[in-house]
Amino acid sequence: MQRISREGSKLPLAERRNFLKNGLLLAGSAIAGGTVTRSANANESNLPPNVPSWTRSLGAGVVTNPYGKPSRFESNIVRRNMPWLTADRIASISFTPLAELDGIITPSSLVFERYHAGIPDIDPDDHRLMIHGMVDRPVTLTVDDLRRFPSTSMIRFLECPANGGMEWRGAQMDSLQFTHGMLSCCEWTGVLLSTLLQEVGLQREAAWVLAEGADGSHMSRSIPLAKAMDDTLIVYAQNGEPLRPEQGYPVRLLNPGWEGNTSVKWLRRLEVGDEAWYHREETSKYTDLLADGRARKFSFVQECNSVVTFPCPEKPLKDKGRYEVEGIAWSGKGKIKRVDVSFDGGVNWRSARLKGLILPKALTRFGLDWDWDGGPAMIQSRAVDETGYVQPTYTKLREARGTSSVYHKNAIHTWRLHADGAVTNVQIS
Amino acid sequence: MQRISREGSKLPLAERRNFLKNGLLLAGSAIAGGTVTRSANANESNLPPNVPSWTRSLGAGVVTNPYGKPSRFESNIVRRNMPWLTADRIASISFTPLAELDGIITPSSLVFERYHAGIPDIDPDDHRLMIHGMVDRPVTLTVDDLRRFPSTSMIRFLECPANGGMEWRGAQMDSLQFTHGMLSCCEWTGVLLSTLLQEVGLQREAAWVLAEGADGSHMSRSIPLAKAMDDTLIVYAQNGEPLRPEQGYPVRLLNPGWEGNTSVKWLRRLEVGDEAWYHREETSKYTDLLADGRARKFSFVQECNSVVTFPCPEKPLKDKGRYEVEGIAWSGKGKIKRVDVSFDGGVNWRSARLKGLILPKALTRFGLDWDWDGGPAMIQSRAVDETGYVQPTYTKLREARGTSSVYHKNAIHTWRLHADGAVTNVQIS
Repeated sequence: MQRISREGSKLPLAERRNFLKNGLLLAGSAIAGGTVTRSANANESNLPPNVPSWTRSLGAGVVTNPYGKPSRFESNIVRRNMPWLTADRIASISFTPLAELDGIITPSSLVFERYHAGIPDIDPDDHRLMIHGMVDRPVTLTVDDLRRFPSTSMIRFLECPANGGMEWRGAQMDSLQFTHGMLSCCEWTGVLLSTLLQEVGLQREAAWVLAEGADGSHMSRSIPLAKAMDDTLIVYAQNGEPLRPEQGYPVRLLNPGWEGNTSVKWLRRLEVGDEAWYHREETSKYTDLLADGRARKFSFVQECNSVVTFPCPEKPLKDKGRYEVEGIAWSGKGKIKRVDVSFDGGVNWRSARLKGLILPKALTRFGLDWDWDGGPAMIQSRAVDETGYVQPTYTKLREARGTSSVYHKNAIHTWRLHADGAVTNVQIS
Repeated sequence: MQRISREGSKLPLAERRNFLKNGLLLAGSAIAGGTVTRSANANESNLPPNVPSWTRSLGAGVVTNPYGKPSRFESNIVRRNMPWLTADRIASISFTPLAELDGIITPSSLVFERYHAGIPDIDPDDHRLMIHGMVDRPVTLTVDDLRRFPSTSMIRFLECPANGGMEWRGAQMDSLQFTHGMLSCCEWTGVLLSTLLQEVGLQREAAWVLAEGADGSHMSRSIPLAKAMDDTLIVYAQNGEPLRPEQGYPVRLLNPGWEGNTSVKWLRRLEVGDEAWYHREETSKYTDLLADGRARKFSFVQECNSVVTFPCPEKPLKDKGRYEVEGIAWSGKGKIKRVDVSFDGGVNWRSARLKGLILPKALTRFGLDWDWDGGPAMIQSRAVDETGYVQPTYTKLREARGTSSVYHKNAIHTWRLHADGAVTNVQIS
C-alpha cells in the first residue's frame, strides 16, 4: 500500500472522491442548480460568492512593508518558551510552532532558539573566522572572504538533542510545539568545511576539529574529521537571506543530521587537532547517562523520528468524517523510507504516503486519509529510514538507554483523540 | 566540462586550491607559525581571533522576537519599487533583491509584489472559495474546508511575464533587482486543483476554468483544463507558514511555470466553462504584440531564462583574483539542463556547475570559478532546459517577436564588468 512520489502526491481517484460524498465536509454550503444555499455558519454578508468589504475597496500599496510580514490574523503563529524551564531567558529555549506549519521549510522567523549566553549583536564587518591548529596555512577570514569560495545549498533539518527530553521521564507537555518543537528545517547556504580545510592544508595527525562560537558562552564542540570532510557546511545564509541573529549571524556551522549544538553558531574559530577536546558541552552536557551509570560519549546522530502534526493538541478535529492525517519524519542518517500510522495505539498499522520532496537529513511530510467515526483513538506514527532503522517504542528506548537521559528521545509518540475531537498527549510504553 | 550534482557540489581538488594560493583573497590575514599578522583592514580590537564586545557580554534572551527578524546590519535587503513606473502604488510592482539572495528559496518577506487594487486585508474566517459552472456538485468552501483535502507541497518559481520588459525596448535599469526582480521561488503548499475538480465532478463540455480574485480589481484569468488537471495548486501556505497578505492570503492559485498573473491571488471563485472568457487581463494585457500587428494569445509559459547574480551592479568585484561567478536559471517547461557562461559577450562559452537541488519549474543555481585579471569583461549566461530550448539572444527574440512587447523577455543578459570592478547593465544584440 505504500506510495512514494518524489514530487507532488496524486491519490487514486477512488480515494479522493469521499471528501464531499459523505456529506460531512461541506454540509450546508452546497449550491444546487444555481440556487445559493446559505451555509449554516455564514452570516448575511457571506453569501457565496461573498462580497465582503475588501472586495469593494482598495488595499495597501506596494512596499507598504519593504520587508513583508504575516497577516494580522496569524499573530498566534510564534515561537514560545516555558518560563519555568530555565533560570534565565539568555540560556534557554524557544519552540517552533510545528502544528501551524506546512511543507518542509521552516520560516526563519519561526526556527526554534537555543543559546547559552543570549543572542550576540554582531557587526559582520568586525567578525572573523580563524582556522588554525594542525594545518599548513592557518588563516583568519572575514565574511567577505568566506563568500568568495564556491558555495552550496542544502535543505536539512536542525534539531536539539534535548527535543522531547521532558517526555522521557514521563512529563506530558500539552502541545506539539512543546513536545517536538526544538526542530526546524531550512535551506542552508555556505561553503563546505572540506573546501576550507583543503585550502589551509591538513597535517598528517589531523583527526578532529574544534568549533567555537563568538557569543559570550564560547560554545564549543569537537567534530571528527570524517564528518568535517563530508557534509559539514560553514553557513552564511538561511532560506535565501542572511542567517538570522539567533541562528548564528553572520556565520555558523551546520553538521547535517547531528545534534543541534554541534552546529556551532556565531562561529569564530576552527582548530584542527589530533583528538577531541572534551569541553564542557560534550562532557557534562550532551552525553547520555545510561542505567548502569556509564554515559554514552559523542552521540552525534539524531536518530530516525516522526510525529503526527494533524491532529494534535493545537489542531483538534471538529466533526466526524474524512481527514488527511499528516505528520513529519526525519533521520540524521539519511532519507526517510517509510512511515506507518496507527490509530489504536500500535496494534494495527497503515503505511502513509510520503509527500513532496524526500531529501536526506531533512523533514519529510507524510499523509494518510482517515475516516473518523467520532470514537476515541490513540494515534501514532513510526518512521523507518533508508538504513532500515525503525523508530522505537518507549519500552525499547528505555531498555537500551534507561530513564536518566534527556537527549535523543525518539520514541513513538502517542496522541489520544477524544470523542469531542480534542487531542491530548499520552505515553504508551 | 559540465558537472551536475543533485545535492551539494564537490569541486575537484585542483580547482579548489587556488583561493588561497594566488595570495589575493586573503592578503594580510594569514597567520604564520602561530604569529598573528594583522589584517590591513582590521582595527586593534579585531586581532584574530578577535574579541569584540559581543564575545565579552551577554545578549538578548529567547522570544525577544517571538516572530524573528533579520539582523539590523541587513536592513538594505528589501523590496523596492520605482515610483515613476506606475501612477499609483496600489496598482504597481515591487522587486525582489536577487543580488542579496542565496540558494533557491526566496524568503516570503522578499517575494516581489504585483497587484491591481492594493493588498486586501482578508479575515480568513469570512473568506469563501466558490467552485461552479460546468460541474455536477458546485460548492462554496471555507479555508478550513480546503485544509481537509489531501495537501501537497512543491518548490516552484513565480515570475511576472513583464519581468525585464523595460529592457526589451532598450531601457537600461541600473540593478539586478530592477532588471530581473519580478521573480521569486518558494515552497508552496495546498490542494491540487485536480483534487477539487474531481470532487465537484466535471461535466462533459468542461474545457476551461476561470479563476477570480477577491481583491478590489477582481483579477481574473482563464486556465485551460489540461493545466488545471495537471499541476495547478490551490495554495494556502508559502515557505511553511500561511500565505503572506501580498501573496494572496488566505488562498491563491499557483500555475507552476506560467505567467505570474495566472496564479490569481485572494482566490474567491473558480468557474468551469467550455471556452476561455477573454477578460481584460488576458486581452488588453498579457498578450504579446508582434511586429505585424497581430498579438500572441495565451502565451502562458515562462520560457527558459537565466541571469548572473554575482557579479552584478549591486555586487561589484573588489580585487583581481579567483571568484565563483554565480547565477540563477529557470524554465516554465521543466528542469534546467545546462547553463553556459561567457566573459566576452558571447564569443566563448564555458559550462557552469548546476548547484544544489535541480527541480522542475524552480530556480536552479549555477556557479563557475573564474580568475579575474582586472580587465573589462562582458559577462553573460545562457540556459538550456530539459526540452532542449536554448535561451535566445536579443536578435533572435526580436526576430520572433518584434520590439513592441513588454512580456516574456528572456533574452541573454549582459553585465559589463569595468576595470575598477564596477558592473553596469548593457545590451548586446
